[in-house]
Amino acid sequence: MTETSMPRVVTTIADFRTAITESLAAAQEELDRTARQEAEQNGTAVQYTNASLGYVPTMGALHDGHATLLRRAAEQNDVVVASIFVNPLQFGPGEDYEAYPRTLEADAALAGAAGVDIIFTPEVEEMYPDGDPLIRISSGELGTKFEGATRPGHFDGVLAVVNKFFNIIRPVAGNHPVNAYFGQKDAQQYILIQRMVHDFNHDVTMRPVAIVRDDNGLALSSRNSYLSDEERESALVLSRTLAMLRENSLNRGFHEIDLDGARERINSTPGVRLDYLELVDPMTFGEPTEESERVLALVAAFVGPTRLIDNMDLR
Amino acid sequence: MTETSMPRVVTTIADFRTAITESLAAAQEELDRTARQEAEQNGTAVQYTNASLGYVPTMGALHDGHATLLRRAAEQNDVVVASIFVNPLQFGPGEDYEAYPRTLEADAALAGAAGVDIIFTPEVEEMYPDGDPLIRISSGELGTKFEGATRPGHFDGVLAVVNKFFNIIRPVAGNHPVNAYFGQKDAQQYILIQRMVHDFNHDVTMRPVAIVRDDNGLALSSRNSYLSDEERESALVLSRTLAMLRENSLNRGFHEIDLDGARERINSTPGVRLDYLELVDPMTFGEPTEESERVLALVAAFVGPTRLIDNMDLR
Repeated sequence: MTETSMPRVVTTIADFRTAITESLAAAQEELDRTARQEAEQNGTAVQYTNASLGYVPTMGALHDGHATLLRRAAEQNDVVVASIFVNPLQFGPGEDYEAYPRTLEADAALAGAAGVDIIFTPEVEEMYPDGDPLIRISSGELGTKFEGATRPGHFDGVLAVVNKFFNIIRPVAGNHPVNAYFGQKDAQQYILIQRMVHDFNHDVTMRPVAIVRDDNGLALSSRNSYLSDEERESALVLSRTLAMLRENSLNRGFHEIDLDGARERINSTPGVRLDYLELVDPMTFGEPTEESERVLALVAAFVGPTRLIDNMDLR
Repeated sequence: MTETSMPRVVTTIADFRTAITESLAAAQEELDRTARQEAEQNGTAVQYTNASLGYVPTMGALHDGHATLLRRAAEQNDVVVASIFVNPLQFGPGEDYEAYPRTLEADAALAGAAGVDIIFTPEVEEMYPDGDPLIRISSGELGTKFEGATRPGHFDGVLAVVNKFFNIIRPVAGNHPVNAYFGQKDAQQYILIQRMVHDFNHDVTMRPVAIVRDDNGLALSSRNSYLSDEERESALVLSRTLAMLRENSLNRGFHEIDLDGARERINSTPGVRLDYLELVDPMTFGEPTEESERVLALVAAFVGPTRLIDNMDLR
């Protein structure tokens, strides 16, 4: 657990690595001192524990959903780092890379209140000094479905930057465990990164965090800031439809769900255009079966010009 | 520098990581002790240095070329690890994956004599527990040229396994520097891995080691063991032609080289079929120009059924 204070903000990989090394060393010293004090008070052997590092990758424009991720990381780790980087590689042509909100000052305050020790916010040139990387990561067939169908190359870009962040952070953590926190709103992103961790032997533990919703049910997203009041009202059809599907599924089983009716409901909402509404087994993102431990309903839709996604567990 | 003894042989990732941690800790203790003794003798402040880790990836069937890599790693590092793994992902259909020589006992003896502390020799199931990885690495356009043209997917497979090895090794090395040693015979492999290190932010320093040749000039290769006496004689045309090109280039400049004549010379040798003979700038693997610091002649040919490669600096 980390005390609340303004985080250290660094912009170069070298400074970030140094900051992690220093913070982990300080945290370890503190842990060791506490362990020795406890042992002395109780007359027992010293129980040493290894300081852990929590990492939360973000694109900034932090909202309460991020705050939940960051607080979770702070509860579960001795040192917490967050990256704030709007990664050009995961935006397609015509998407909102330029318009994506950049709010570093407010982000730093929110992160500090949540217990973040270090913010790494590099320029594009620091991450891609020679332009686009020559050696690419391919998210495979799964990366071409759902979000990947509408946003070709999106997941390859996500994996490219997360792989880089893991390689920047992991070595300096040495034998300290590293936990990485990702929101479940990006369910397909989560499974792809988890698969990369597995396939690439990243020594990082993935920690999923449940979707955070506002009082009306709207899943929190940095892109919600694009919505007019009217659009924000229309957008509620997404979470409400998912909640209805969940209700129906819990009552009658997911096979009995009227998906087409649900699609129609979304599409008939003024200003809303459905991209997809599908059920998947979140472990594979293939079709759910009776054996599926979980069944996830995935939705993506344009609300005005803004593309939103959401998902909900049906079991 | 490491003392000569039989290396510790481990087969699981977990054991490998533990062995690295233990060896680095022991090496650091030894370094610190020496530093303190020297400071005491000289009445100076203690000069601490950080133990370094040398890594040599191999597919086994170790020969004097490997021995040179391993000795270099032992000269330059406090702990030396080698992997021995015939990586199925870098062999194409119909290539020699099954036939590739496996000689672990002799390899361990050679590695021990060269100063290797730990050999990691995993089964295929340890490296690819779920079969082929879903998340793939693409070597891009450069990976489709030269070796990649004849061996589609070869470099993607090389990058996949080297990326895994780096991720297995690097975190447990923590703040100890890691040096990775690669032979220059695989010049295209070298530049692709170097590019991956750059693009992926691997905290590893690449160390190229010059080609080792036998007395007749034949570049050492594990695949030379496939050659009959007659084929071994025929294979000499490769290094001899490269040496002739170098002579001509040094005398008259690389623009004046008769590449077609050289190709003809190789193709007219009994039992030898040229795949390619080309000049490249080894920094880019594009066409060499007057500004190129180095010009590399690359050759690949079948000698009987065995495919051999070689290369030589022309400047």
